[in-house]
Amino acid sequence: MWETIFQAIDDQYNKMVETRRYLHQYPEISFQEEKTAQFIADTYERLGIPYESNVGGNGVLATLEGGKPGKTVALRADFDALPIEELNEAPYKSKNEGAMHACGHDGHTAALLGLAEALLPFQAELPGTVVFVHQHAEEYAPGGAKPIIDTGKLDHVDAVFGTHLWVNAPLGVIQSTKGPFMAGADRFELTIQGKGGHGAQPHQTKDAIVIASQVITQLQQVVSRRVDPLKTAVLSIGTIEAGHAFNIISDSARMTGTVRTFDSEVQDLIIEEMEKIIKGTCVASGADYDLNYEKGYPPVVNHKDEASLVLDRSHEADPSLQTEEIEPVMAGEDFAYYMHNKPGAFYFTGAQIPDHYYPHHHPKFDFDEKALPHAAKTLLQAYRSYQEAHQS
Amino acid sequence: MWETIFQAIDDQYNKMVETRRYLHQYPEISFQEEKTAQFIADTYERLGIPYESNVGGNGVLATLEGGKPGKTVALRADFDALPIEELNEAPYKSKNEGAMHACGHDGHTAALLGLAEALLPFQAELPGTVVFVHQHAEEYAPGGAKPIIDTGKLDHVDAVFGTHLWVNAPLGVIQSTKGPFMAGADRFELTIQGKGGHGAQPHQTKDAIVIASQVITQLQQVVSRRVDPLKTAVLSIGTIEAGHAFNIISDSARMTGTVRTFDSEVQDLIIEEMEKIIKGTCVASGADYDLNYEKGYPPVVNHKDEASLVLDRSHEADPSLQTEEIEPVMAGEDFAYYMHNKPGAFYFTGAQIPDHYYPHHHPKFDFDEKALPHAAKTLLQAYRSYQEAHQS
Amino acid sequence: MWETIFQAIDDQYNKMVETRRYLHQYPEISFQEEKTAQFIADTYERLGIPYESNVGGNGVLATLEGGKPGKTVALRADFDALPIEELNEAPYKSKNEGAMHACGHDGHTAALLGLAEALLPFQAELPGTVVFVHQHAEEYAPGGAKPIIDTGKLDHVDAVFGTHLWVNAPLGVIQSTKGPFMAGADRFELTIQGKGGHGAQPHQTKDAIVIASQVITQLQQVVSRRVDPLKTAVLSIGTIEAGHAFNIISDSARMTGTVRTFDSEVQDLIIEEMEKIIKGTCVASGADYDLNYEKGYPPVVNHKDEASLVLDRSHEADPSLQTEEIEPVMAGEDFAYYMHNKPGAFYFTGAQIPDHYYPHHHPKFDFDEKALPHAAKTLLQAYRSYQEAHQS
Amino acid sequence: MWETIFQAIDDQYNKMVETRRYLHQYPEISFQEEKTAQFIADTYERLGIPYESNVGGNGVLATLEGGKPGKTVALRADFDALPIEELNEAPYKSKNEGAMHACGHDGHTAALLGLAEALLPFQAELPGTVVFVHQHAEEYAPGGAKPIIDTGKLDHVDAVFGTHLWVNAPLGVIQSTKGPFMAGADRFELTIQGKGGHGAQPHQTKDAIVIASQVITQLQQVVSRRVDPLKTAVLSIGTIEAGHAFNIISDSARMTGTVRTFDSEVQDLIIEEMEKIIKGTCVASGADYDLNYEKGYPPVVNHKDEASLVLDRSHEADPSLQTEEIEPVMAGEDFAYYMHNKPGAFYFTGAQIPDHYYPHHHPKFDFDEKALPHAAKTLLQAYRSYQEAHQS
Repeated sequence: MWETIFQAIDDQYNKMVETRRYLHQYPEISFQEEKTAQFIADTYERLGIPYESNVGGNGVLATLEGGKPGKTVALRADFDALPIEELNEAPYKSKNEGAMHACGHDGHTAALLGLAEALLPFQAELPGTVVFVHQHAEEYAPGGAKPIIDTGKLDHVDAVFGTHLWVNAPLGVIQSTKGPFMAGADRFELTIQGKGGHGAQPHQTKDAIVIASQVITQLQQVVSRRVDPLKTAVLSIGTIEAGHAFNIISDSARMTGTVRTFDSEVQDLIIEEMEKIIKGTCVASGADYDLNYEKGYPPVVNHKDEASLVLDRSHEADPSLQTEEIEPVMAGEDFAYYMHNKPGAFYFTGAQIPDHYYPHHHPKFDFDEKALPHAAKTLLQAYRSYQEAHQS
Repeated sequence: MWETIFQAIDDQYNKMVETRRYLHQYPEISFQEEKTAQFIADTYERLGIPYESNVGGNGVLATLEGGKPGKTVALRADFDALPIEELNEAPYKSKNEGAMHACGHDGHTAALLGLAEALLPFQAELPGTVVFVHQHAEEYAPGGAKPIIDTGKLDHVDAVFGTHLWVNAPLGVIQSTKGPFMAGADRFELTIQGKGGHGAQPHQTKDAIVIASQVITQLQQVVSRRVDPLKTAVLSIGTIEAGHAFNIISDSARMTGTVRTFDSEVQDLIIEEMEKIIKGTCVASGADYDLNYEKGYPPVVNHKDEASLVLDRSHEADPSLQTEEIEPVMAGEDFAYYMHNKPGAFYFTGAQIPDHYYPHHHPKFDFDEKALPHAAKTLLQAYRSYQEAHQS
Repeated sequence: MWETIFQAIDDQYNKMVETRRYLHQYPEISFQEEKTAQFIADTYERLGIPYESNVGGNGVLATLEGGKPGKTVALRADFDALPIEELNEAPYKSKNEGAMHACGHDGHTAALLGLAEALLPFQAELPGTVVFVHQHAEEYAPGGAKPIIDTGKLDHVDAVFGTHLWVNAPLGVIQSTKGPFMAGADRFELTIQGKGGHGAQPHQTKDAIVIASQVITQLQQVVSRRVDPLKTAVLSIGTIEAGHAFNIISDSARMTGTVRTFDSEVQDLIIEEMEKIIKGTCVASGADYDLNYEKGYPPVVNHKDEASLVLDRSHEADPSLQTEEIEPVMAGEDFAYYMHNKPGAFYFTGAQIPDHYYPHHHPKFDFDEKALPHAAKTLLQAYRSYQEAHQS
Repeated sequence: MWETIFQAIDDQYNKMVETRRYLHQYPEISFQEEKTAQFIADTYERLGIPYESNVGGNGVLATLEGGKPGKTVALRADFDALPIEELNEAPYKSKNEGAMHACGHDGHTAALLGLAEALLPFQAELPGTVVFVHQHAEEYAPGGAKPIIDTGKLDHVDAVFGTHLWVNAPLGVIQSTKGPFMAGADRFELTIQGKGGHGAQPHQTKDAIVIASQVITQLQQVVSRRVDPLKTAVLSIGTIEAGHAFNIISDSARMTGTVRTFDSEVQDLIIEEMEKIIKGTCVASGADYDLNYEKGYPPVVNHKDEASLVLDRSHEADPSLQTEEIEPVMAGEDFAYYMHNKPGAFYFTGAQIPDHYYPHHHPKFDFDEKALPHAAKTLLQAYRSYQEAHQS
C-alpha cells in the first residue's frame, strides 16, 4: 500500500506546484493570515475531510481517521509570510505589497494539502489517525504553535512531525539531528530616548541616532567578549528607525532585534549584558531607554527515537533521498512547543536551486518545487515509521 | 506719520494672533503649502492690495505703491512648516498629522499680513514701494527663495529685509550681525548597501545596520579631528531607517543629514572626509554605498550698511526694543539668496517664552505672540530707515 | 609493582612542593629559561639519569630505560614563565621582576622531576623506556615543541602524553577529550601609521590612537558578525602602545593580539576579515598599517585510543581521582605538534584552590599543590596503560 | 642708538645659531633642564651680567640695569624640550635619546642670550631695566612660569613680553592678537580598570583595551555633539598603554591627553561630559576608572595696549618685518600667567622653512634660523616701545 500512496503523492506534483504558486502570490504576514486559512479550510471542505478553523487563532486542524487501528500522529505545516518586498521576477511573484513567502511556508502548506488529497483514497487501509496541523504565525513570537496546543485539541495526539523546506541543503537531502536542532529565538525592542532639536545645534540635544549607533556598535561585544566562545549565540538588530527630517536631530531611535541561543544560561547572560551596555551608553549621554525583551521560542530539541525514524527510514519514501545528521542551526521555530509534551522530530527537506541561491528571508528567496513531494512523502514516511514502531 | 503707523500695527495685535493661530492649526510642509498660499492670497484680495500667486512655486508677492517717491524695498516672510508631530497641548495645536509650524513661520506670515493691513490706510503718504514677499519652502533645500528670485519679479527691488522670530532671544530683543549671520546648510542622503539574510546567520550577510552604526560613530571624527578647531562646523544625521523585521538582517540602511559651515573650504573638506570615512567603513565590510550630497543654502551674510540700519534704529519702532550684535548662528536660511544681488539684512526678533523654552524644530516649540508686532514694526522701521538713508 | 611506585610518588610530595616553590620564585620568560633548564639538568645529574641539554633551544631530554621490554613513551612538561608581575603575597612569590609562573609550568616541571626520582628505584622492573621531555617556551610561538621534535631526538618514541595543571577544574578531577581538545593559537602584530602633531591641532594629523580605537572596536564584529555562530573563534588584543606625551598626537599605535580557532577555514576567514577591517579603517583616515600575522600552534587534537586510556584508567593511579570528558577549551598548546606524527593524549589535572580562584595568566594565579602527585601519577598511569595496551 | 643696537643683534647671528645648535643637540625635557640652565647661567657669568639661578626650579633671571631712567620690562624665553625622538638628519640632531627641541625653545634661548650680549655695550644709554627671564618647563603643566612668578622676583617688573618662533608663519612675519591669543591647556590621565585573564577566555575578563577603545571613540562626541559649534574646543588623547603579552587580556589601560579651550564654561562642560562618557562606558562593561584631570595653563590673553605696541611698531626693528593680527591658536602657553598681574603681550615670530614644514611637536620639526635675530630685535623693540609709551 505505502508504495502506491507515495506514487499518489508524486501524482499530486502539479497540484502542489499550483497551490504553492497561488499561495506565493497572496502572502499574508503573521497573525493576519485570514485568507490563507480560508483557502486551507476550503480545500478540506472540498475533499470532505473534517476540519476545524480558527484553532488558537488562524490555525486549521483536519483529521483523517484511518480504517485500521494505530496511533494518532500530527503532521504540521505553517502558513504565514514575512514583511519583505519580493525582488524576484517570477510569474508567481507576490501580489501583496510588503509581504512575501520568503521562507517556504507556502511550500509547506502545499505539500501537506497535497499529502491529504493523495492519502484520502487510502483512508480505509490506513493504520491510526493523521492530524493535519496547519499553523499560522510561525515567524512572529509568541507564534501560533503555543495557542494551538493550548486549545487542548492536540492532547490526544501521540507524536508529531514537521519539516522545513531548506535551501541550505541540496534537493534530495533530508537533514536532522537526534537532539538540539534549532535555536531558541527571542525578540526585543529597544527605544533610546534622547532630546531632539535643530540639526545645527547638537549641543542642545541628546542625539538619539548617535547614541543608538554607539549601542549597536557596543552590542557586538556581547558575542565577541562576554559569551563563552565555546557557546553559541547570535544577537542581531533587524530594524532601526529614527528621525523625521534631515535637519532635525531626532529625540528617539527605535530598534528591534533577535537573540538566538541553545541554552538558557547563555540567554540570561546575554539579556544581562545587553542591558548593561544599553544602560551604560545612556549614562554616557544622559539619555533614557526602554528595553522590551520577549523570550521567544525555546530551542527545537528532537526526540532521539523519532529523529532516528526520520534519519534511518526517510529513503524508504523515495530511494533518491539521502539523509544527513547535521550540526544544529541558529534559526528558531515554534515547532519546539509541540515536542515539549509529545515525542516528535523536525527535519529539513533540501530545496536549493543551485543557480539561484538566496538565504531564507532574503527578498530573492526561492526554492526548488521538486522538493514539495519530498516533503509530503517523508512526512508520510515518518507517520508510517512511527505506526510500525508502535504496533502492538 | 510713522508713529501713527507703529500704533496701527499694535492695533493689529489681536488679528495677527488670530491669523497665526489659524495657520498654526493647518501647517503644510515645504513645497506642499497650497492652502497656506491661498490663505495669503485671499487676505490681499480682501485688502485690495495687488498680488501675484504661484511665484516660483507657491510664492505670493504683493505690492503696495506709496504715494511719495522712494525706493522699492522687499520685506520677506516664509510660510512652510516642518514634518514634525506637535506635542504641545495648546488650543491652536496642529490639526494636520505629521506637520507642525515648529519654527515660527506661521508668525512671520501673520506679522507681514498684519503689517500690510496696518500700512494700507497710509499708502498715500508712504515714500517708495513695499513688496511683501511671502515665500514658500524655506525649510527644505533648494528652497523657495531662489525660484522666486529666478522669476525676475524682484529685479526692480532696491533692498530686502527679513526677520526670524527667535526663541533663543528674550522678548523685546532684536539680534543681528554686520556680516556672516547664519550658516551654510547642506543636505545629504546616504544609503549603505550590504547583504540581507536571516537574523540568525550574520556570517552570510553584510549587516547594513551595524555598518551604518560604524559610519555614524566614525563621522563624529569629522568635527572632532579633521576640521580646524577654530573653524565652525556641524555634521548631523537627522534620520536613519533600515530593516523590515526584527529577525531579518537588513540589506540596506538609509540616512539623511545636514552639514553646516561658514566657509566653503571647510564645506569641501567635510565632504571629502565624510566620503573617506563612508568608503573606508564599506571597505571594512565589503559593502557598497551611495552618497548624494546636495550643497544647500549658502551662508546668510548681512550687508553692513543695512544691518547697521537694523541694529542702530530698530528701537525707533518701539522704545521697549533693545538691539544686540551677536555671534553668528549655525542655522541656515535661504534668505541668503536675496542678499546675493541686493543689499539687505536679516535679523532675529526675540520671542522666548521663559517657562516654555523648546528650541526651534522641537515638537514642543512655541513662541511668545507678543513678538508679532515687534517683527512687523521692525520690518517697517528697516523700510523707513532705508528710505531715509537713500533720500535724494 | 605499580601500586608501590604510585606510593613512592606520593612520598615525593614535599620534594615536589619544594621544587615547585623554588621554580616559582625564579621564573624565566619564554626562550630565556636558561637557569631553569640548568636546574632541571642538575637534577638529572644528581639522580644519575642520562640527559641531554640544549635540545632545540633550552629543552632538556632525560631517558630512563626500563629493565623489561616495552614501548618508548615520552612524558612532557613545559617550564617557561610569563611576562606578568605577580600580585600574590605568597612566601614563594616571584623574585624576578616582570616575570611570573602564572600558568603552572613550575608545577609541571616539579611533577615530572618528582616522577623521575620516584621511578628510578624501579628501573629494573619497568617495561619500556620513559623519555622525560622538559620543554622550554610553550607560551610564545613558534614555541619549543617544534624545534625539539625537529632535532629528531624523539623519532624513536612510540607515544607521547602530557598534562596541564588546571585551575578551572576541581582538585581530583582529570579532564580530556577524545578529539579536538585545545584551540589553534595565532599571534599578530598590528601597527597603525598615521601622522603626528600638536595635541591642539588634530586637523593637521592622522590621529593613530583614535584610528587604533576604531580598529579595535570594529574587530569585535569579526566574531559577532562574520564567523558562523556555530563555529568557535576568539580574537583578542593583548597589548596596545602609542604616544610619548599627553600633548602630542601620536603618529603610530602598535598592538599585539591572538586569534584562537579549531579549524583552518575559520582561521583563514578571520585573517581575511581582520585585514579588511584594518584596511577599511585606514582608508577612512588616510592612514597606513602593517599587519604581521603569524599562524601559531595548531589545535591540540587527542588521539582517540590514547585519550581513552587516560579517561578510562586514570583512577587506577589514585582511586580518589575522577575523570571527565569535557568540551574543548580555547587555550592553545604546542603539545599539538607532538601528536602530529605520534599517537598521544593531553589532559588537564584539576588544581583549583576554591577560595583563591584566578584564571591562568592572571597576576594572582595560583594552584593547589596537592595536584602535583596527581599529575605525576596520571602521567605514569598513562605510560603503564599504553605499555599494557601494546604488549605483544 | 636703537638702530645701532639692532645692527649689533644682527651681528650676533652666527653666535645665536651656534648657541641654538648646541642646545638642540642636548635637549632636556621639562623639569629636568639642569644642564641647559647651567649653560644659560654660564653665559651670563661670562658676560658679567648679574643673574640668579634656580628661580622657582631651573629658572634663571638676569638683570641689565640701564643707565637712563625708565620702566622695568621682562623679556622671557623658555628652554625645556619634549620627550620626542628626533627624526631629522641635521648635523645638530639631538644627541639625547628620547628628547628633542621640537618646539623651538632652543631658538628662544639663543635669541634672548644673543640679545643680552648685543645689548650689554649699550647699557649706559639704555632707559629702564631689562629682566631676562629664562624659564624652564613650559611644555608640562604646572609649568615653570608660575613658580618663577611665585618667588616674587618679578614683582617689581612693569611689563612683560615674549615671543614664540612659529613655523606656521613665514619668515619675516610677526603675528599676534589684541586679546585672546592662545588656548587654555589641560592635562588628564585616565586609567580603565577591568579584569585580566587568558586571551582565549574573554568571557572571564573585562577587556580593558576594548573598553578604552570605546571610551576614545565615544570621546569624539564631546567636540562633535556636546560643545556649542561656535565655541572652540579640542580633546586629544596623547598616549595609551595597556597589556604585557599578546595572549593575556589586560586588566587595565592607561591614557593621557589634553583639553584646549578659550573659556572656562566650555572647559567645565568638557570635564563633565568626559566623565559622563567614561563612567557610562565603564557601566556598560562593569569596569572601573580613575580620571585625574588637571586644569593646566589658562588662556594667553594679550593686553590690548602692549599687543598694539608689538603689532604697530615691530617693523621699526627691521623694515623687512610684517605684522599680522591673526585668529587665536589652540596651543597653550604658560606665558599666560605673566600677564595675569602685569601688562604684556605674546607674539609669534615667523620661522617656516618652506620646503621642510613639519608642525611643532613633530619629530621632523625644524625652523629657519634666520628668524633668531627677528625674535631678538622684536623683543627689544617691544621693550623700546613700552619705554617710549611710558616716558614721564
